[in-house]
Order: sequence, then structure tokens, then C-alpha cells
Amino acid sequence: MSNPESFRELCRKEIHTGPTSGVLPGYIQANLLILPKCVAESFEDLCTRNPVACPILSKTEGRPQFLRNHASLIKQGTFDIRTDFPRYNVYSRGKLVQQKNNCVNEWSSDHVGFLIGCSFTFEHALEKAGLVPKNVLYNKNVSMFRTTKFLDSAGIFHQCPYVVSMRPYKLTEVEIVREITRKFKKTHGEPLDWGYDGAKRLGI
Amino acid sequence: MSNPESFRELCRKEIHTGPTSGVLPGYIQANLLILPKCVAESFEDLCTRNPVACPILSKTEGRPQFLRNHASLIKQGTFDIRTDFPRYNVYSRGKLVQQKNNCVNEWSSDHVGFLIGCSFTFEHALEKAGLVPKNVLYNKNVSMFRTTKFLDSAGIFHQCPYVVSMRPYKLTEVEIVREITRKFKKTHGEPLDWGYDGAKRLGI
Repeated sequence: MSNPESFRELCRKEIHTGPTSGVLPGYIQANLLILPKCVAESFEDLCTRNPVACPILSKTEGRPQFLRNHASLIKQGTFDIRTDFPRYNVYSRGKLVQQKNNCVNEWSSDHVGFLIGCSFTFEHALEKAGLVPKNVLYNKNVSMFRTTKFLDSAGIFHQCPYVVSMRPYKLTEVEIVREITRKFKKTHGEPLDWGYDGAKRLGI
Repeated sequence: MSNPESFRELCRKEIHTGPTSGVLPGYIQANLLILPKCVAESFEDLCTRNPVACPILSKTEGRPQFLRNHASLIKQGTFDIRTDFPRYNVYSRGKLVQQKNNCVNEWSSDHVGFLIGCSFTFEHALEKAGLVPKNVLYNKNVSMFRTTKFLDSAGIFHQCPYVVSMRPYKLTEVEIVREITRKFKKTHGEPLDWGYDGAKRLGI
């Protein structure tokens, strides 16, 4: 596909239902979280306090077709947060209860959808520099780790483990990887740490 | 003293040379860092990536009398970053080499001064709620701890330990303390953690 609208359509029609690493290079990619209104303010605080882990790109404004600060950018009928993502994990009382290709039946006017910047966004820049990430090369999802580091607490969000992605590089490539990714301030930016000692510091 | 201008004058005249806990309730208090220009961009990135630990209030714009976004607020002749703080620690190659009441001789056009929000700012609000912090009660500096948590890296700033202040409260008072401090988004806001387990999580 050639543009975000067509890709969202592929998702809406449930043709694309897998990860999006490598999809539409050059465009910002987002992770999706949909929460009940009663915890939305706490979650926004959590994001503001932890902008590297949870960089907020936008959130729904009332209806699932409207994104704050982006309403004018999205042509009517080309976006619906309930259908335009490849896959939805449904959680109930903290447990994953279902995987679905849309969340039309689950969505209510009591929900707020948050778009969080995704590290897939900088993979294209790494590729262009000849530093193709392993997950792109093998067309797999990126490695992710739950660290022993906690996010800075916000409201009901306390003791939230800091989750990181990991891309293997030679130690001699780390500085150039840092430099390339640093510019992507809305999609995690430069790595938190590196090397065996770095993994140890993060409790990996 | 009754206003920030008079207090800055007391510092400039080297009459007030101690901590500022309890000074001018209701005003924002700031920590000061002066760095050479070559690391200023990295430091600003560090602050943006760690807004809870290092909330930037302002930085000098060229001359030591001008603060970015605040130039119009400060009457000429009432502010100089080199003299208007009670005490200055001079560091050389990572080591504290001197304590002085001004840094006129050390400052050069190659320096950038950063003002970072200080937790003393919310102490007055805690007092008003009957939750007088122990350090205010005993007129002492607040307890500070170097945690085993690291700030999210930025440029040359890597492996920077997260430093926290600690104010003792009963466990039953924690929720109201969180609620009061939460609003002070530019001066650290709500606590990272609490209780014996919280101290353990932070490596204290």
C-alpha cells in the first residue's frame, strides 16, 4: 500500500491483522490504548511524566473518529479507532480475555483512545543508514523486555514496570544508532541503555 | 522579605546564604545548574526526557540577566543568575572544588544557566493542609537520596542516578499528600513512591 488511508482500510477490512514493523516507511507509527474515562486523566498524567516510555501523539475527542489536534488532518470516513488497527487485545480486570480484529462491540462513549508513539517509526532511518534492525531483516516483531525499572507514578498508575524494545547492534555502532534515533523525540528517541552492563542496569 | 526582588537582593548582597525551604511561600522555587554550551543541548534533552526529575523552568538566553520566555517579566537590574542565588557549588572535572556566594568570576559567555523546578514549591500547600513537612518544622534542608534508578539517557548524560527528596508522612496521609503535590507539575509533582517497599524499589 502507498499511503496511511489505504493501510487503515486494509486493517478495517481485516486483511492486514499482523505487526506493522516495516509498514509505510517515513510515517509515524502508533501504539493504541483504549481506557475507561475514569482512569484517562491518570493515564495522561502518566504519559506526561514518562514521555520517553509513553509519548502521547493524540487521544480521541469524544467520538472514535476524532483525534485531538488532528481532526482537521483526517478526511471524514478515513479513520475509526475501533477498526483501523490490525489487532485488538481485550483486557478485563487486568487479564487478556480476547484478541479481535476490531473493538466495535467493546467501545462505548465512556472510552478514551490514546495513540502512543511507536519505535517502528525510526526503523526506516536506521535502514537508510545501513543499520537494518534484525526484526525488520527477519520480518519479525521486535524483542521486548519488562525491566526492573518503574515508570514515575501518576494517580492510579503506581508500580508500572518500564517496558523496552531491544535491537541488537555492535558496540561500535551504538553512537550512530543513538544519533539517528535521538531525533525521533515523539517515538521514544535514543536508547535508554546498551551493552551487557546496560541490560544488567535495566534488570534484563 | 516580602517579594522575590527583595529576596534576590538579600542573596546578591550575600546576606542570605543558606537553603530556601520555607522562603516566600506561594512562589515557584528553582534549582540552578550552569553548564558550558557544549553540553547544554544534551542537558536540555535530558530534562525533556525526564520532566519529573528535571523540570526545566527556564534557561539563560545569552547574557546572565536574561531568562528565556521570562525576559519581559523581570524588571531590568533585578536579576543576575551569577549573584542572585544564596550559594554556588563550583565543579571542575566532576569534583566539587569550591563553595561561593556568587559565580561572577567563573561565568563566561560560553555558559548557559538552567532553572529546574524545586520541591520546596509545594511545601506551603502541604502546610496549609496541616501536613507540615518535617524539614520545614525543624528549619532543616530536606532529606535527599541517590536511588538505584537511572534517568533516561540523553546525549552525553548516561547512567545518571535519579536523586529524590523524602518527606516522612503516615501511610494514612499519603493519598492526600499525593493529591496536593500532583498539581505542582513543574516542580516534581506527586511522589514517585512511598512506604518501606517503595524505598526498597528505589534502592534506598
